[in-house]
Amino acid sequence: MSLFTDRLHADAEDVERALEAWLPMPEDDAAGNLHESMRYSALGGGKRLRGHLVLTFCTLFGGEREAALPYAAAIEMMHAFSLIHDDLPAMDNDDMRRGRPSNHKVYGEATALLAGDALALRALETAASNPYCDAKQNAEAARLLASAAGAAGMCGGQQIDLQSEQQTIPMELLTDLVLRKTGALFAVSCELGLIAASAFDEEAHASARTFARHIGLAFQITDDLLDLRSTPEVLGKTTGKDEKSGKATFPALLGVKEAEALAKSHCEQAVSLLDKLPAGDERSSLRGLCEFILTRTM
Amino acid sequence: MSLFTDRLHADAEDVERALEAWLPMPEDDAAGNLHESMRYSALGGGKRLRGHLVLTFCTLFGGEREAALPYAAAIEMMHAFSLIHDDLPAMDNDDMRRGRPSNHKVYGEATALLAGDALALRALETAASNPYCDAKQNAEAARLLASAAGAAGMCGGQQIDLQSEQQTIPMELLTDLVLRKTGALFAVSCELGLIAASAFDEEAHASARTFARHIGLAFQITDDLLDLRSTPEVLGKTTGKDEKSGKATFPALLGVKEAEALAKSHCEQAVSLLDKLPAGDERSSLRGLCEFILTRTM
Repeated sequence: MSLFTDRLHADAEDVERALEAWLPMPEDDAAGNLHESMRYSALGGGKRLRGHLVLTFCTLFGGEREAALPYAAAIEMMHAFSLIHDDLPAMDNDDMRRGRPSNHKVYGEATALLAGDALALRALETAASNPYCDAKQNAEAARLLASAAGAAGMCGGQQIDLQSEQQTIPMELLTDLVLRKTGALFAVSCELGLIAASAFDEEAHASARTFARHIGLAFQITDDLLDLRSTPEVLGKTTGKDEKSGKATFPALLGVKEAEALAKSHCEQAVSLLDKLPAGDERSSLRGLCEFILTRTM
Repeated sequence: MSLFTDRLHADAEDVERALEAWLPMPEDDAAGNLHESMRYSALGGGKRLRGHLVLTFCTLFGGEREAALPYAAAIEMMHAFSLIHDDLPAMDNDDMRRGRPSNHKVYGEATALLAGDALALRALETAASNPYCDAKQNAEAARLLASAAGAAGMCGGQQIDLQSEQQTIPMELLTDLVLRKTGALFAVSCELGLIAASAFDEEAHASARTFARHIGLAFQITDDLLDLRSTPEVLGKTTGKDEKSGKATFPALLGVKEAEALAKSHCEQAVSLLDKLPAGDERSSLRGLCEFILTRTM
């Protein structure tokens, strides 16, 4: 295995443990079903790429892994929230996620709605109360995470996504859509790593955001390509759905070949940004991440 | 008018201005519809009781009104989020709210879902970045607000509410349900006021929470009584719906007379707690609030 895949797997295990610690199953809670539903979607699955970014950027900037883990758990909870709400019938109406029935197929729509809400809230509670960081770090972490997930970021991207179905939208708007829907959480993952390392320097944050936006765009393009080409068995979720629902995607707008070239170009730009970072294992591993994003099959 | 109603109206105006400032309508945003939908539900309506509690407790503990206003806006955004999601077809399926069509009737289910999400996130972003408070205050405000709204608080209460439909549940469980569904946001409103006044003393927070739980219970009981007795014209929302959907309520469990007596008892307990507070206009006004909660017709 490569340095990157070794690290991704090790990080995924640690993020899973952190999620387990921050999402305990309470005893004798009448709302136990809600906790179960939150744990169903947040635990036991996913590549944990966002959590990996938090840990990698924290180490890269000299921070302690321990300080980054609650933020890594928080970003993965925020991601799980977005997947639950995305899959609801009022949104993408998807029955399958990570190789299992989606949350509302197991717990019903009402509980799934509440589980998404409660995961977003728990993500921010976790970020605001990371015991290995001080109040300045935690307030900034909560602010950035809430902003990235909200109307200016992810939720805004989802809204544009909804509005763009069955339409051809210009390249600029599609880029805005993807930067918000996918790029915003990648960017804040890197920034949470910086904050865990007490790096508040705006220049470092701006570079991290630029890097993350390139890999976010590349990630979404390969996601759309996999939706076109792969199978539910490999991907663990419904495929072919973008085309069916007339989603605005780069492959739909540019064709497959041009979309592949665009993803490659974004990864190359991300890699070239890495040259400005301190040399070492983290930098090498991030190169591996860029390669993975381009060539991934799941 | 009484001291309380004078203050409630003045506070409602200031909270409205703060909400307008923290929920601006962005120019040229492709997700403009989402912002419009958020503003539709958060602005221009509501008694602003929760915002009023933030401002009152801040002043009571010697804080500046200016420092409390962003937190007051945050709690009202969180309340608006809960109303939007509550009204969705998967939840209570209500077509009317505050005398207008509910959010999803105007913007559609998908945008309403996102608007609720984005308001909860914006509430926490606001709490975490209150410019009149320091990082210690803001991290604690975000932590408490997220916790009160989440699975341990409001969302957990909603879950129990769902599970209890068409069932007779014991008094203890109904109390847990209401304390979480309604009491948790009342309690954190008072606590946000304390935090804006830099009052971190656990004893003061515990007293504020106990006071808020009593008025939260009384508020929910009168809400349930109004649902039984009032009209949509007066209340601005559908009435008679609890009985129709078999909701677990105090009037349903105890009968109207006993429920009225229980609401009265909770208000009396809340008033008796006020005696421990410093004398002055705030204390008098809070007495007025207890009276209002008991006798309100809307």
